[in-house]
Amino acid sequence: MPDSLSHVGDQGQARMVDVGSKPVPARRATAGARVSVRGATLEVALSGLGPNVAVIETARLAGIQGAKRTSELIPLCHPLPLDAIDVVITPDGSQALRIEATAAATGRTGVEMEALTAAAVAALTLIDMLKAVERTLVVTELRLEAKSGGRSGEWTRPS
Amino acid sequence: MPDSLSHVGDQGQARMVDVGSKPVPARRATAGARVSVRGATLEVALSGLGPNVAVIETARLAGIQGAKRTSELIPLCHPLPLDAIDVVITPDGSQALRIEATAAATGRTGVEMEALTAAAVAALTLIDMLKAVERTLVVTELRLEAKSGGRSGEWTRPS
Amino acid sequence: MPDSLSHVGDQGQARMVDVGSKPVPARRATAGARVSVRGATLEVALSGLGPNVAVIETARLAGIQGAKRTSELIPLCHPLPLDAIDVVITPDGSQALRIEATAAATGRTGVEMEALTAAAVAALTLIDMLKAVERTLVVTELRLEAKSGGRSGEWTRPS
Amino acid sequence: MPDSLSHVGDQGQARMVDVGSKPVPARRATAGARVSVRGATLEVALSGLGPNVAVIETARLAGIQGAKRTSELIPLCHPLPLDAIDVVITPDGSQALRIEATAAATGRTGVEMEALTAAAVAALTLIDMLKAVERTLVVTELRLEAKSGGRSGEWTRPS
Amino acid sequence: MPDSLSHVGDQGQARMVDVGSKPVPARRATAGARVSVRGATLEVALSGLGPNVAVIETARLAGIQGAKRTSELIPLCHPLPLDAIDVVITPDGSQALRIEATAAATGRTGVEMEALTAAAVAALTLIDMLKAVERTLVVTELRLEAKSGGRSGEWTRPS
Amino acid sequence: MPDSLSHVGDQGQARMVDVGSKPVPARRATAGARVSVRGATLEVALSGLGPNVAVIETARLAGIQGAKRTSELIPLCHPLPLDAIDVVITPDGSQALRIEATAAATGRTGVEMEALTAAAVAALTLIDMLKAVERTLVVTELRLEAKSGGRSGEWTRPS
Repeated sequence: MPDSLSHVGDQGQARMVDVGSKPVPARRATAGARVSVRGATLEVALSGLGPNVAVIETARLAGIQGAKRTSELIPLCHPLPLDAIDVVITPDGSQALRIEATAAATGRTGVEMEALTAAAVAALTLIDMLKAVERTLVVTELRLEAKSGGRSGEWTRPS
Repeated sequence: MPDSLSHVGDQGQARMVDVGSKPVPARRATAGARVSVRGATLEVALSGLGPNVAVIETARLAGIQGAKRTSELIPLCHPLPLDAIDVVITPDGSQALRIEATAAATGRTGVEMEALTAAAVAALTLIDMLKAVERTLVVTELRLEAKSGGRSGEWTRPS
Repeated sequence: MPDSLSHVGDQGQARMVDVGSKPVPARRATAGARVSVRGATLEVALSGLGPNVAVIETARLAGIQGAKRTSELIPLCHPLPLDAIDVVITPDGSQALRIEATAAATGRTGVEMEALTAAAVAALTLIDMLKAVERTLVVTELRLEAKSGGRSGEWTRPS
Repeated sequence: MPDSLSHVGDQGQARMVDVGSKPVPARRATAGARVSVRGATLEVALSGLGPNVAVIETARLAGIQGAKRTSELIPLCHPLPLDAIDVVITPDGSQALRIEATAAATGRTGVEMEALTAAAVAALTLIDMLKAVERTLVVTELRLEAKSGGRSGEWTRPS
Repeated sequence: MPDSLSHVGDQGQARMVDVGSKPVPARRATAGARVSVRGATLEVALSGLGPNVAVIETARLAGIQGAKRTSELIPLCHPLPLDAIDVVITPDGSQALRIEATAAATGRTGVEMEALTAAAVAALTLIDMLKAVERTLVVTELRLEAKSGGRSGEWTRPS
Repeated sequence: MPDSLSHVGDQGQARMVDVGSKPVPARRATAGARVSVRGATLEVALSGLGPNVAVIETARLAGIQGAKRTSELIPLCHPLPLDAIDVVITPDGSQALRIEATAAATGRTGVEMEALTAAAVAALTLIDMLKAVERTLVVTELRLEAKSGGRSGEWTRPS
């Protein structure tokens, strides 16, 4: 890893990296988030047809749509067309929900921020959907899990 | 706390709450997030004029701007004019940055989601700005810290 | 009804009406749309847990979110905070889906366009979700059904 | 036509199709919409320089701009750069306006939804522009008319 | 005039002013811009039905719509519903077009930036519409012309 | 230079040019703007760590982010992914700030409007940030300075 910041210039100014001369491979990134909930909240979120569907599906769709807004939200991100976004939400033990978001694109820049944004927006939406039953939902461990494509090749977070 | 979800209707469908008959008090909410970084990354982020300013200020501004997009990102959030958004980022020990985001509005709905969105977007931007020196930044403890105004009055997260 | 266009000025130029001196009542509008489908498509859309939920819920959420973007889409619409948006999608006989969208606000302008936009975006999303099984879905009867609040009072489309 | 939904996964969850391995041909799609108006309204919309221009041109521009927002409005649509958008609005007999919208792109996904969104937003704008003279404008027959490019080749709606 | 910056805090950080305790008067602001063109370009822009209408009307509509996006574009601007936006474009001598944009709102903050954004986006659109005939269009005198409402009362730029 | 408008059709209607058959070279454009300020304001903007950074950096970031919204703001602009955006703000004598914005893309259309939009939004943000100390900031000379790539090759504004 370099010890300088690609997003910061010589005078300390924020800058967008010029990717014009970069290759255009298929790129993919996966981000994860863990949302802590009380057992009773998890039950409300998952048990029964209706609420389950509404809570989980709304959060998943919000994550997918949020990923498309990444370059509007993150100041120095490049806008790029996405080939795919996928968000999966599953129970993680009895006191948490696990979000896994994957983004893919054929482009000059990686899609880590798109995957992370999808996971973050899905997590925020879970908080919003469930706040009537638990005000204190906490997002823990929002982070990049894996990426492939581009100069640095395959990478998976060491466990 | 009720055990039903205000954002989910009788048939399990997602729904936006009708706030038309609610009062219009001054409301305020604060959300926090912790971003774990290696000591060397913290140094890059904070030491010296340039990168410090660029990294922290860019993340702060992104959080402020992100809060204004809350109702676009969170499907069932009401759009509402905001009176204030403030994002503060400080070192939290030697291996973390602490984000604190406050939103205020005079309106029919609370601003918890606005504060949380500000904190989340600031955290995502820190990841983006610092990813050249540390690929594995992790966001933890993204959560509501306090709120006031509205029917439920003052609330502060129990420590 | 007047025979002049409030959105068009003396020289024929498009204009936004100045609503600064209007009162701020509670306003509500309902719009509807009919989406013609083949019987087999209706079955795919409705029968069984999964597709039903995904198709209908995705369209409903898209309608709700679309309503919040009304003033970005319709050039001379005023931006206004919404108190509520509701989108209901039900079978309409054996060869159609019926969308009914309601918007409410406490503001200086009516919310007809918000209700119509919700219905239109929900209809477009149904087309997108179902196009793999039927390429020729047709939206009919996209129109205002009722409104209340404001100078012209209660109105319901004559049947 | 397949009897399964490409936008719905095995567990009934909404999903965005991964188009990363698709070819990148020139694609084109045309959508149409019919907006019923009273004869007197049609006259206001068309006769004379000003209103005609304001009403029709505003609706056309809104349709063009709306097409660029398609992936923000339709949850599972891929964002893609567009090569062209064209919206034509003409009288259709004495009691209707006819909208025809064409979108073109060189990309991995079709542009049907972009054409349909352009037509829908143009129709909504006509309703907004003309509502001062006729509250009950109705959109009929919003639908795809033709498409070309991509695996399924040329298609024109059977008359 | 104070010699400190309301948008900059004690530590030099950008900040959004808290307007929660401000009154809610009717506010209005007018901004202007001058776009220098060659005589031949002015003729193309104004003479004849078509281009005239297309160029001027498109720029006017873009200005109106741009004003609604002010808080998305200007980082520390508060989002606020607008009561009115008006954009007028007229010839200014034989070698310039004059843009005058007015914004009005009933709210806690002024609408200077909304008026200025409307004027700027209208000017940019004129450049875009006319660049096929004159590549070197220049915007000059983009500035606030007048404002009323709020603590500082009526103000008109001294001539 | 042609004497017809590429953005205006035969009947005088606004239109988006079809760029589907254009080549895809690397394109680059630079736009400039000059913002007149009083000497005392320039000092506030530049002297000292905090305000300097906040004012200039906020304006630079706003310009970068604004460039990404170009196709939303300018009605007939094509949406296109950008490879780079750079905004530099420097003192221009003792009574002005100089903005220089560069945009680059590999695409079917030029990026002049993206560079101009970046410069314009940066200028508007300077006005907003400095309006507490000087109400009458004026943008002068917002214009294209240079472009390269595409059919017309290299161009630099004649001095």
